[in-house]
Amino acid sequence: MRITALAGGVGGARFVRGLRHHLDTTPGLEDTEVTVVANTGDDITLFGLRVSPDVDTLLYTLGGGIDEAQGWGRADESHRVQSELAAYGAQPQWFALGDRDFGTHVVRSQWLGQGLSLSEVTARLAARWGLPEQRITLLPMTDTPVETHVVVDEGDGERAIHFQEWWVRHQASVPARRFVVAGLDRAAAAPGVLDAIRQADVVLLPPSNPVVSIGIVLGVPGVRDALRGTTAPVVGVSPLISGRPVRGHADACLEAIGVPATAAAVGGLYEDFLDAWLVDPADAGTTLARARVEVFDGPLLMSDVDATARIAAHALRLASSVTA
Amino acid sequence: MRITALAGGVGGARFVRGLRHHLDTTPGLEDTEVTVVANTGDDITLFGLRVSPDVDTLLYTLGGGIDEAQGWGRADESHRVQSELAAYGAQPQWFALGDRDFGTHVVRSQWLGQGLSLSEVTARLAARWGLPEQRITLLPMTDTPVETHVVVDEGDGERAIHFQEWWVRHQASVPARRFVVAGLDRAAAAPGVLDAIRQADVVLLPPSNPVVSIGIVLGVPGVRDALRGTTAPVVGVSPLISGRPVRGHADACLEAIGVPATAAAVGGLYEDFLDAWLVDPADAGTTLARARVEVFDGPLLMSDVDATARIAAHALRLASSVTA
Repeated sequence: MRITALAGGVGGARFVRGLRHHLDTTPGLEDTEVTVVANTGDDITLFGLRVSPDVDTLLYTLGGGIDEAQGWGRADESHRVQSELAAYGAQPQWFALGDRDFGTHVVRSQWLGQGLSLSEVTARLAARWGLPEQRITLLPMTDTPVETHVVVDEGDGERAIHFQEWWVRHQASVPARRFVVAGLDRAAAAPGVLDAIRQADVVLLPPSNPVVSIGIVLGVPGVRDALRGTTAPVVGVSPLISGRPVRGHADACLEAIGVPATAAAVGGLYEDFLDAWLVDPADAGTTLARARVEVFDGPLLMSDVDATARIAAHALRLASSVTA
Repeated sequence: MRITALAGGVGGARFVRGLRHHLDTTPGLEDTEVTVVANTGDDITLFGLRVSPDVDTLLYTLGGGIDEAQGWGRADESHRVQSELAAYGAQPQWFALGDRDFGTHVVRSQWLGQGLSLSEVTARLAARWGLPEQRITLLPMTDTPVETHVVVDEGDGERAIHFQEWWVRHQASVPARRFVVAGLDRAAAAPGVLDAIRQADVVLLPPSNPVVSIGIVLGVPGVRDALRGTTAPVVGVSPLISGRPVRGHADACLEAIGVPATAAAVGGLYEDFLDAWLVDPADAGTTLARARVEVFDGPLLMSDVDATARIAAHALRLASSVTA
């Protein structure tokens, strides 16, 4: 079996880890190949180095190097390089990079500078984290540099700041008028991305942010058409429980695009290609005009790997049922 | 008074620190301005980051951040970034960069990438290390990227390796046929370098490597002419004692260019502009056709700051005597 998942950072990474655990512990499913199409819309150049936050969170989570409590960054991290940068007055200082994390950004930037594509670099990074041995292929959504900017009010006018500045520095507390993804309309899907959707047996949407994670991946030219056209069932997991994101600032992002923060409204964003939608018991009663909605038998919380594996298992059962 | 010194890494940095100590503790000399023209010939791009080993050794030594025992690199250093790079298989692995040191290379590369010159970057780095407050101006010899390569035997032929690979990886143990400084013939002296030599009251040559440190600075177009033309006395301190370098591999470098490893032969390399030459008691009897030779009253070893200050003081007295 071939499963393809579109993913943002923390939520996507935890979901895929749970999915892999389910596959590895279910007789007959161990050989399933999982392809992850990662959002690169919140990539940023910091201190001259190229940082891919969602790709890194996927690498570290799936490779066993993640800071579990924080959800992103490396375990057992230190901040000596960043302290030096601060002492030199280097900008910006609102994005804290750890020393181990710096290693990833340095080598990514080195390899990109040598002419490798982001896909090629990501494959090399994934090799270090043992993803091939886990039958996980991690693809950036595009090799084209794209950057999400957030338009916010300023005085009588508005200004655009980098998504990371809005998300990390302001914790999404500054009202966003809209998101502008520089370069996205001219971006080409990375090698393998469209085929991974078209040739999959199942396509999964983890409970990642529907606007600035999944929504950005869907904006890569060709991705939405591939999802509409694939014969694979497409099953999504709601990122909201009773209108609130389990984690992150999906509600603030939805507000910026004028979409209610409900499981139904988020499912509605995907309805042109979605076959089934898994929601929390608190959202029982959710209906979608063109997709089957199922209620998970417990909180839709990825509280640990086993709980997440059960969510993934349910999503796969749902995929079989809509195929049959 | 204005003193200008040409300097390589460890030896040059320790000499300038001793010189500054002498000036600061001698009534009437506190206001002396010291300009250091640093060798950038062993600069190297590692992991996509621009490293200026001699400039960094000068910054760290003069700014109080040096690893004293080692002579280069930062005190209280760790190597977490490098461990990550090794785990990713990044090359090369023979040059160990510490985490704090990485901060310098990251910010230098960031600023160079923003279009600042190496001079401008170096001034910013020097501000963090308090050099302006010490009346020390640190100038790279040139803003043009230059790199020293070492031609070594290989089979029946030869090949060129980066100077740092020869120096750090091979510890200068592979016989060098010659040194090739890529870019040096087209390099322009950095802003202020030639004026610092022409307008100095005293020019000092610390006991830096005569071939791959001082020798490279002398190769920057205009520098040697400025030294010949300056009205300032030019006083040098021998880097050899009884034919052996106090530190480093000056003997191997001299062998490569066919010059005997003696205080007389090294002084002879500078004789077209040298006014006086300070040698160790073990080298008493050294004579130069066109420069005065003096014997220091003790070992010509920069064993600590006070000992180095006495050497610098002797060099300054020698400068007065040849001026008079």
